[in-house]
Amino acid sequence: MGLTIGVDIGGTKIAAGVVDEEGTILETYKVPTPPSADGVTDAICSAVSAVSSHHTIEAVGIGAAGYVDDKRATVLFAPNINWRHEPLKDKVEQRIGLPVVVENDANCAAWGEYRFGAGQGHEDVICITLGTGLGGGIIIGNKLRRGRFGVAAEFGHIRVVPDGLLCGCGSQGCWEQYASGRALVRYARQRAKATPENAALLLALGDGTPEGIEGKHISEAARQGDPVAVDSFRELARWAGAGLADLASLFDPSAFIVGGGVSDEGDLVLDPIRKSFKRWLIGGAWRPHAQVLAARLGGKAGLVGAADLARQG
Amino acid sequence: MGLTIGVDIGGTKIAAGVVDEEGTILETYKVPTPPSADGVTDAICSAVSAVSSHHTIEAVGIGAAGYVDDKRATVLFAPNINWRHEPLKDKVEQRIGLPVVVENDANCAAWGEYRFGAGQGHEDVICITLGTGLGGGIIIGNKLRRGRFGVAAEFGHIRVVPDGLLCGCGSQGCWEQYASGRALVRYARQRAKATPENAALLLALGDGTPEGIEGKHISEAARQGDPVAVDSFRELARWAGAGLADLASLFDPSAFIVGGGVSDEGDLVLDPIRKSFKRWLIGGAWRPHAQVLAARLGGKAGLVGAADLARQG
Amino acid sequence: MGLTIGVDIGGTKIAAGVVDEEGTILETYKVPTPPSADGVTDAICSAVSAVSSHHTIEAVGIGAAGYVDDKRATVLFAPNINWRHEPLKDKVEQRIGLPVVVENDANCAAWGEYRFGAGQGHEDVICITLGTGLGGGIIIGNKLRRGRFGVAAEFGHIRVVPDGLLCGCGSQGCWEQYASGRALVRYARQRAKATPENAALLLALGDGTPEGIEGKHISEAARQGDPVAVDSFRELARWAGAGLADLASLFDPSAFIVGGGVSDEGDLVLDPIRKSFKRWLIGGAWRPHAQVLAARLGGKAGLVGAADLARQG
Amino acid sequence: MGLTIGVDIGGTKIAAGVVDEEGTILETYKVPTPPSADGVTDAICSAVSAVSSHHTIEAVGIGAAGYVDDKRATVLFAPNINWRHEPLKDKVEQRIGLPVVVENDANCAAWGEYRFGAGQGHEDVICITLGTGLGGGIIIGNKLRRGRFGVAAEFGHIRVVPDGLLCGCGSQGCWEQYASGRALVRYARQRAKATPENAALLLALGDGTPEGIEGKHISEAARQGDPVAVDSFRELARWAGAGLADLASLFDPSAFIVGGGVSDEGDLVLDPIRKSFKRWLIGGAWRPHAQVLAARLGGKAGLVGAADLARQG
Repeated sequence: MGLTIGVDIGGTKIAAGVVDEEGTILETYKVPTPPSADGVTDAICSAVSAVSSHHTIEAVGIGAAGYVDDKRATVLFAPNINWRHEPLKDKVEQRIGLPVVVENDANCAAWGEYRFGAGQGHEDVICITLGTGLGGGIIIGNKLRRGRFGVAAEFGHIRVVPDGLLCGCGSQGCWEQYASGRALVRYARQRAKATPENAALLLALGDGTPEGIEGKHISEAARQGDPVAVDSFRELARWAGAGLADLASLFDPSAFIVGGGVSDEGDLVLDPIRKSFKRWLIGGAWRPHAQVLAARLGGKAGLVGAADLARQG
Repeated sequence: MGLTIGVDIGGTKIAAGVVDEEGTILETYKVPTPPSADGVTDAICSAVSAVSSHHTIEAVGIGAAGYVDDKRATVLFAPNINWRHEPLKDKVEQRIGLPVVVENDANCAAWGEYRFGAGQGHEDVICITLGTGLGGGIIIGNKLRRGRFGVAAEFGHIRVVPDGLLCGCGSQGCWEQYASGRALVRYARQRAKATPENAALLLALGDGTPEGIEGKHISEAARQGDPVAVDSFRELARWAGAGLADLASLFDPSAFIVGGGVSDEGDLVLDPIRKSFKRWLIGGAWRPHAQVLAARLGGKAGLVGAADLARQG
Repeated sequence: MGLTIGVDIGGTKIAAGVVDEEGTILETYKVPTPPSADGVTDAICSAVSAVSSHHTIEAVGIGAAGYVDDKRATVLFAPNINWRHEPLKDKVEQRIGLPVVVENDANCAAWGEYRFGAGQGHEDVICITLGTGLGGGIIIGNKLRRGRFGVAAEFGHIRVVPDGLLCGCGSQGCWEQYASGRALVRYARQRAKATPENAALLLALGDGTPEGIEGKHISEAARQGDPVAVDSFRELARWAGAGLADLASLFDPSAFIVGGGVSDEGDLVLDPIRKSFKRWLIGGAWRPHAQVLAARLGGKAGLVGAADLARQG
Repeated sequence: MGLTIGVDIGGTKIAAGVVDEEGTILETYKVPTPPSADGVTDAICSAVSAVSSHHTIEAVGIGAAGYVDDKRATVLFAPNINWRHEPLKDKVEQRIGLPVVVENDANCAAWGEYRFGAGQGHEDVICITLGTGLGGGIIIGNKLRRGRFGVAAEFGHIRVVPDGLLCGCGSQGCWEQYASGRALVRYARQRAKATPENAALLLALGDGTPEGIEGKHISEAARQGDPVAVDSFRELARWAGAGLADLASLFDPSAFIVGGGVSDEGDLVLDPIRKSFKRWLIGGAWRPHAQVLAARLGGKAGLVGAADLARQG
């Protein structure tokens, strides 16, 4: 019956959308992301007001990058916005007069895919989001599992290489340094620098220098068979698949859903991930294998998931 | 109200025990583990019969090393016994006339600790067992989480070193190659070989050669300050703690319980594990920290847990 | 003018050959390798006698796997034969009445290639031998460099993976565990086990099981495009080339020579090694690149090199 | 008889010194390092003129960070100064009218220690310099070995961790990312951030924050037993010693000399390096061990070595 609003706080814009019980977005509104922490709160409230005027809204779900506490009320730490122990739920509720649920953005996206996307029909599903970094969410027994303190599913920061690459989190060797959009670009630039003769097409798509290579160039060049671009996707897939094999050892879900910008390339990236997953899956001869599925909701998963989580309270 | 039986299948003996609702073992019976797969089934039935004669038993729980299917009926694969897709539940039920639940042995131990040991009062708890290898179990929301196909919580086989040590599972770099009783012995032997002058006490406790060093010697020597023994525990703890930090990123439990023979040393090994855990925990300044607790039930955790899981059906 | 004899002590047979100043082998004689250490010495003397009867011989060079001391007289340690501080030069000289030089077998092969094979014309050349393990030799300034104590150029045992695969030497992560004939077989077996559907041809060449895969099958299957075989060679090349890049940072030779059984495949294996070398070479844009050449003398390099080293005294 | 001048181009100042045949510095002159490449050449000439007025000078040796070609004339690439294929020898000779030899600065320091410092009496010696980065030099058979193209002994850039830390050279996992002054500071900051309670003294010596920790604070705190400082030195030593063990496998020298700012701490850092070296040395029971010696000339090694190399032509 009821409608809820989902809010997605992105690096450049904040989107609010009215979502019905089938996960359909009825109306959306976007504002640029303000630089200040208070400004972000203002913008959230404005965007919610803008879309709520024509509908009867029951609740609001807000997806935020960072640690959200066990009560889904306080942002403990947001890496990009200056929120530290920010009581976001209280602040927004006071201003908009609607019940608010705050949730980690990757959790929202996972929930969106589970409810209305590639995860439908699975009781136990693990989502990973290969965006700039690597995030994810855990559904077990048809419930989103957020951990005792709210900060579970930080997949991007499990250590896959001891003494490995420095990570923005302060640690080293984190999975997202090896399997993410940023990693893909690094792979391509390093290879193009060492062997430019194998990256002619890739370099031509950018400004001719290794540093000018961006993600979109790698996708385009890979589709046309550029050796360095293909090899860069293969390297990404090597790490992504090996990590999924670890997650299978831990969670044993019936499906993995791979989302985020990198997954937009579809089977170009998913097939090598599946191959690597199978290569590294432990005991593969004696167990059913989880499916590795492409996300279906694209960039809307987070907004839709946030709205649905708000509906569920 | 009722009593159930827990069965623990070990490498050298099979133990059955009658357990009440408080987790108290009323009676136990042990038989040597037979070499053949069929012999093991026979022995399980014999042991159950032996302890059930003086009690009214409602159900039997059997803990087995290996993959147990989603119905908790079939052992898909057991590394030590020649069971492949073995319908253990059906076979034993037919012979003893009681409801049977089969479960992975490390899951049983985790459940035992959660119900009657160090995990009491925690809704979300992760247990690891540092025995010869490394096993574990997952409790989330007061339930044992076994995965969609029954083979979750295979902690020992997440890859912590790419291109690392060969593992019996066929993969490389598995956590149990770096954090387990077997790893501890390897650390001590390698170090005693390279720098025997720092392992005088440790070598004296064995037969004088690096190959003669066993786990008990390392514990004894470490308590007396032998540098190689202390350093070997520290190396084990380095890997154990870093792995727990990864599990915290994934599961965010309120407590970790460390069991298995290695944990018998108590704070000698737990303190360095806690230190390493804290060293590698991501975002430690912005989140509540899980406790790292020593298991309390010792070698009985598996039997007690199996019995309790049988009670719950 | 003079002729010398080179002796090559292999795992299955001992070969002695009369070699002239151009590196031409005039006559050879082979005997099976005896199981006992003393038997090996006897066999060396017999083989030398057998080939020396029709020629005037000036000296004998013996290539032995293991550590040979700075005087090229004593085998400090041989991994395969039970020689520990074995005064091989004295023992053989007393029995055959000719000057004897003992040298590490990989050093002999390197010298052979430098003098009469792929290394001719290079003053500074590094040879690696990809056989069962990985050995090598160093020529700098037209001289064989054996180190102060005679045990330099143990390339196979530099650590390329911290906490990596166990090595027969007692250490972990040694290069020869990742770049050698034995590593190639391991790569193929692991991959064939995980993804048999990609190894159909490879499996058919052996006995149908992953364990039945041998080196010759991998070469044959790779030539026919079997995905697992090709991928196994690529993995070997990845590690071999990266290691050569390290050696370039250290030694900066004008050429690398790659010998040993694995190199018999020629460009099938050398081209991916060259590609990986270039990928990992530091500062490649600012320095002349060493050539990566295939060895030319095949299995005779050691014998010819030993004979020539004996000539030079 | 004759006197020569050594020039040391540092990041903040350029030093020229008149050196006699015993390696004694008779007079020095320093100028700030100019920002432009041409300015550096001017400053070199000025400094040489300043010190040469009171002496009869035979030749000038210039130590420069970067790749110097096989003729010791052209700087192929300098990471800090904008020199690319810079004909430094010709330029300086034209202006000062004296024979000039250009050499890599770490090679100069190695030669200085070999001739007049800790390396005296050794024919085969490997020097490593633990400064901000990690450099080194190779002496074999009493000669400096620079490689075929002049760029040997780039110790800092051998890969010790596959997929490891990014290096300024464009590669990953380079030794200098794990064993250098910069690495030491990183170790201390990471640890102080994770466990500030173990770094009380260390933090107090700086500005109270992990980012405020500098190398001098770590040395001071380690001498007073601060756990994080001690552990940071131990971590540095772990990597330094393991790398020396690799160099022993390759070069088998009679001595290693450890110089650079980090080595100023003497046995505080050298003892753990020796311990780690012994731990990782291959075949240690069967071979003579190289000594691990502290450098003796301190910051003057480069200047003295450059002057001596100029004397030798």
